[in-house]
This record gives sequence, structure tokens and C-alpha cells, in this order.
Amino acid sequence: MLHAPTPSPLLETIAAIRPADAEAAAEARAHQDRLTKPRGSLGVLEEVAVRLAGAAAVSPAPIPEPAALAIFAADHGVHARGVSPWPQEVTAQMVANFLAGGAVANAFAAQAGVPVTVVDVGVASDLPAAPGLVSRKVARGTADLSRGPAMTREQAVAALEAGIEVARDLIGNGARCLITGDMGIANTTASAALISAYTGRDPEHTTGRGTGVDDRTYAHKIRVVREALAVNGLAGQGADGSREGAAESAEARRERALRVLAAVGGLEHAAIAGFILAGAAARVPVLLDGVISGAAALAAAALAPAVVDHCVAGHRSVEPGHAQALSHLGLRPLVDLELRLGEGTGGLLAHPILCAAARVMHEVATFDAAGVTEKRG
Amino acid sequence: MLHAPTPSPLLETIAAIRPADAEAAAEARAHQDRLTKPRGSLGVLEEVAVRLAGAAAVSPAPIPEPAALAIFAADHGVHARGVSPWPQEVTAQMVANFLAGGAVANAFAAQAGVPVTVVDVGVASDLPAAPGLVSRKVARGTADLSRGPAMTREQAVAALEAGIEVARDLIGNGARCLITGDMGIANTTASAALISAYTGRDPEHTTGRGTGVDDRTYAHKIRVVREALAVNGLAGQGADGSREGAAESAEARRERALRVLAAVGGLEHAAIAGFILAGAAARVPVLLDGVISGAAALAAAALAPAVVDHCVAGHRSVEPGHAQALSHLGLRPLVDLELRLGEGTGGLLAHPILCAAARVMHEVATFDAAGVTEKRG
Repeated sequence: MLHAPTPSPLLETIAAIRPADAEAAAEARAHQDRLTKPRGSLGVLEEVAVRLAGAAAVSPAPIPEPAALAIFAADHGVHARGVSPWPQEVTAQMVANFLAGGAVANAFAAQAGVPVTVVDVGVASDLPAAPGLVSRKVARGTADLSRGPAMTREQAVAALEAGIEVARDLIGNGARCLITGDMGIANTTASAALISAYTGRDPEHTTGRGTGVDDRTYAHKIRVVREALAVNGLAGQGADGSREGAAESAEARRERALRVLAAVGGLEHAAIAGFILAGAAARVPVLLDGVISGAAALAAAALAPAVVDHCVAGHRSVEPGHAQALSHLGLRPLVDLELRLGEGTGGLLAHPILCAAARVMHEVATFDAAGVTEKRG
Repeated sequence: MLHAPTPSPLLETIAAIRPADAEAAAEARAHQDRLTKPRGSLGVLEEVAVRLAGAAAVSPAPIPEPAALAIFAADHGVHARGVSPWPQEVTAQMVANFLAGGAVANAFAAQAGVPVTVVDVGVASDLPAAPGLVSRKVARGTADLSRGPAMTREQAVAALEAGIEVARDLIGNGARCLITGDMGIANTTASAALISAYTGRDPEHTTGRGTGVDDRTYAHKIRVVREALAVNGLAGQGADGSREGAAESAEARRERALRVLAAVGGLEHAAIAGFILAGAAARVPVLLDGVISGAAALAAAALAPAVVDHCVAGHRSVEPGHAQALSHLGLRPLVDLELRLGEGTGGLLAHPILCAAARVMHEVATFDAAGVTEKRG
């Protein structure tokens, strides 16, 4: 039986992503300088407002609220290697905790007035249906990335498209800012492998202590990440295309990015990457959480480089790989308070700051309008 | 005619300030470790929650909302020395801008849901009465601190008591967090002098470029601060009591602190110091803004050392003196985004983060209650 070619949500999404609009950004910068404050006195927030205008292709950019947080949960085959002191069932237990409103992400979301959606994209156990839980399970966790690919190409694409679908639904329901969140015991190990693979940095610089491992386990974790890169043929290279010749086609670049994601990523990394891509495609800014989101953003940027223009780094976690990812993406975090929790907590803390930066452009008077004298010289 | 001795609001306030309650702080720390998150994973925010509990003398501490921002406005005689590129009338013009809702502080306050009170404690010109403007003018600006004392002792006390009264009114109207704000052309010069006087640091390390001065004006500004310290007999010493023998009485320490404040402070610095003292006396946390608030907090701490336990540093400004002040006070800022605007903008950005830290203690489930397994080992 013949089928008409099915449009791929992933390719459609990637094709829709546009880089920042330079004219809107320039207009925002010029407007910023007319406002009743010394030039530059809002520091990083001035650049954030300009960035939002470029991404939105209009100045001033809309204030990015309401926001919506999606927490993507999944398990990891590499957990069997003893890289985390937490039992794997904590992933499912924390999903229940999110749904009951008892986690830190819930408290931060309540403070920020942000609704929370929990997505099972690959938890190892069966989860009972519950309000607020979106079931998009692609697999019962990944395979062990230190022995071979964590996912098949098809699984990675399915997880990416789960993230795309969640983002589209949230935007369809009115979200004007997407906040990324994750839950997955052992997912800092997969993050370190992804960050090393996409940036070319040695695992020593991308692997951290996650939720708390002792010195012996930490050394073991670095070895496991190294093994993962070696067994998957990813050692000693940056796979995001930045080191490749211009001759490589966009399709070849995407295939390579996808192969890395499938080889050493988690299902939640893939879903978050899709979530980011879909936000960018809709010109809805994406507020990134910590190291897991940073690794996912590297995957998204390898698939579609212009996606970065639509991302804002919510915070910097203490995980060393996160700083590497942010630096590679050229993003500066808004909050830097030594958090290392994930769940979207860092993104949630940053949301009011992001809105404040955008609001200035709408509400602050110009020198002329307010009758305030400008500085001399 | 004989009078019964009038109780001094300043002395009453100082006498009411208690240091952090160690038991409540310990209880908060223990509770923090039972919550469903890896220990320490909220980084700086865990210490903030403990700090709030100690200050409130109860664990968990109340969530510090609603907040109220007071912007204390005043002018400075030292403006005549050419330390700022902005004309003095900008202080009054910005007061009008605040009252019309057109300044950055208004936009940030709207984002945070915080009402704004503007207090004229020493603007050089007459200001028309307006809703939202509290008139507590002590003088038409200070005298030039580089030629002699900026204020008389009586003026400094009157400004301190204006700040106390404003704080009491806001707390009486339900505020559960006080945010400090300032407006005063040339007030970074007075701040640098205060910070040098209270910390003993050289003006080279406490003087910054404020709202933007060129190299020549910057060098001149440092010289003016140096002259101010010399003419007022404050060069080369830390005047907060930390370098003094234990033998000095509390009264002598206070008199010395007051003399420094009057000599090189601004009327808004004194009012903010009073505002901080009154918050602490009522066990209402005070969220400090930038360098002007930092200088005022040094004055408050010199008057009543326990006041620091009730302060949270909202942000760190790019003014070098601010980092000196925070380090001397032992405070770590929540936001660090290269702002240099004042008005309370840094404090406003930090308020949702402060509330989030407090909210965790009320709303996050414990491992036991949520049925989440704790980590091994």
C-alpha cells in the first residue's frame, strides 16, 4: 500500500526556525538608550531585552508571560554502572512528587505563577495516569551508553517529537515562554557525555558530582563518560558542526547531531531538545534550566544553529559541564546561586528577571517624555 | 516649662533589634535536609532560608511578602565639585518620573507586584505634593562633604528617624519585606566616602564611576572622596567598631557611627539606615539594593551590629564600593547582573528569589511524607 510522504514534525520544526532579526534588535538597542536611566545601567538586562526583540522580530518584544514549565522524566541504562548514589526508582517517585505538588520545582513554580506539566518520556516503570502527567513514553529508559548507543535513531526522533508536541500544546494554550525541566536519576552522566561530544571538551571538564557523589564515584563517573565516548566513536571531537568545513550539508550536520544525541543522550535530553526547537520555531523564548537543559540545548543547536537566538540561560548550575555548555552556546546565565537540582528550578527563578528586562521596554519613559535632563557630554 | 523625657525613636529602635535566633536557624537547617532534594542542592538559597528563620526567630520563616519599596530621594552639596555628569535637578525630575510610574523601578515593581513609596528626605528644590510622595524633607540637600560635615548630628538623626517612620508605616500597612531604594545625583560619591570610613578601605577601592563618568572625572571623584575623609578626620580608619577594643561602650560606638554618617553621608543614606534599623527591630527582613543601600547598611550596622542578621543583599552592583560593603557586612548578593542604577531595582529583582527560598520550607515534601527513597551512603 502506498502512502503519501508524511511530513516529519522534526524537519518541519527545524525548517521554521529563523535567526534573530537584526533590525528589531537594533531598534531595541536604540530605544534602550532613550529610556530614563543612564546608558548601560541595566547591565546584562539591556542585552536580554535586545535579544528578546531580535528573537521576536519586533521591538519591544512581548513580555514573556505566561510561562509554562515542562519537566521531562526518563531513566538511564548507565545507572547500572553505579554513577549515582540514588536508586533508579527515585525518578518515578519524584514524578509522583511533582504531581502531588511537593517538589522544589512546584514551590518555585507557585512563586512564579507558572503551571507545571510532567512528561513521562522514558521512565523505567509504569506510571499510573494522573492529572498533569503527559504520557509520551518512548522506551523504559535508555540502554547503557557506556556499552553502545543509548537510543536508536528512531527512539531519539520519537523523543524529540514528543518534546515538540508538548511545546506546541503549551504554546497553543497560551504560553509565551517555555521553561525546560528534567528528572532522571543518572542524567548528569549522559549530560557530561553529550557536552563532551558536542563541544569537544574532555570528560574531566564536563563531568560533575551531580546530586552528590563521593571522590571514588566521581572518578568512576569520569571513566564511564570516557568509555561512552570511545565505544560510540565520539572521543576527541566537537560534533556540533563548528569544526567542520562549510562544505558539509545541513542534512549531514543534522544526521551527525542526531547520531550523537542517540548515542549518549537520554530520552529527556532528546525531548527537551525538541521542546527548545519548537519554542524557537514559534518565536516563543525558551528559558533554559541547568546542565541537563544545557546539554539538550547543544543538541538542539547542532540540529538547528539559529535556535540559540531564541534561548535564554536561566541559571548556571555548579556542574562544571554546564558552564562549558553555556560558553559554547554563547549564553550568559541570569541566576548564579550554586543550584544543582534541575527540575526547572533555575529557569523558574530566572523568569521574573526575564520579564522585568522585557517590561522595561514597554513601560519606562524616555528622557523626552518624562522631561528628565540627560547627562552632560 | 518642664518636659517629660521624650523617648527617641532611634534609640528605641536600636534597643529593639535582636540578633538571629540560633535555635530557629538550626531547626531550619535540619528541616532543609529532610526535604525531597539532594542536600545542599539549592545552594545559596538554603542558607537564605536558614537566615530568614534565624531573623524571624521561627522556622520556617514567613514568606516575605507582600514587600514594599521605599525610594529615599535627596541632594548632595558635593555635586558642586563636579563629581557627576548629571545636573542636580535630575533628582527632582526623577522623583516626578517615579510618581508618574515611568522609571525602571516602577517597571520592576510592577513585575514583582510591589508598591512604591517615594520619600523626599532632602531634595534641593520644593516638590509639589503628590499621591505616593511622602514629604520628610530634613534639609535642601547636604553641605559639601569635601569641605566639612555634610550634615549636622541633628540632621542625621532626623533623617534616620524619617526612615524609621516610613518603615513603621509600611509594616503597619502589612509589608512583610522592606526593599531599600534611593535617588540622589552625586550619591555614589557620598557612598564611597561612607564605605571608606566604615570599612577602612582606601577611596581608590570604594569609588566607582556611578552613572557614568569619564576617566578624568573619575580621578577627580577619588580625590574628592579622599578630601572628604581628610577634612572630616576619617582617613585611614574603619569606624564601625570592628577595630576597636571591647572596652568601648555601645553608646560611644553609636556616637562614632553617627558622626561618620553625618560627616560624609547623604540624607537618603541616613534615612535608608533608619529604614533598615526599623525593619530589623520589627523582625521584617530588609532586602538591600545597591551601593547606596550598602553604604547605608554599614551605617546601620555600626549603630546596631545585629541589624545585619535581618538584611539580605538583593544584588551586587558594578560599583566597586558595593562589593567592599557587602564583604564587610558578610552578605552574598542574590542577583549579579552588572546593574548600576539604584532606585531599588536590584532589590526588586531579588524579591521573587527571596520568596522562593522561603517558600521551599513551607511547601516542599519531606522524603518520608513523599515516599521518596533517600540516596545511599
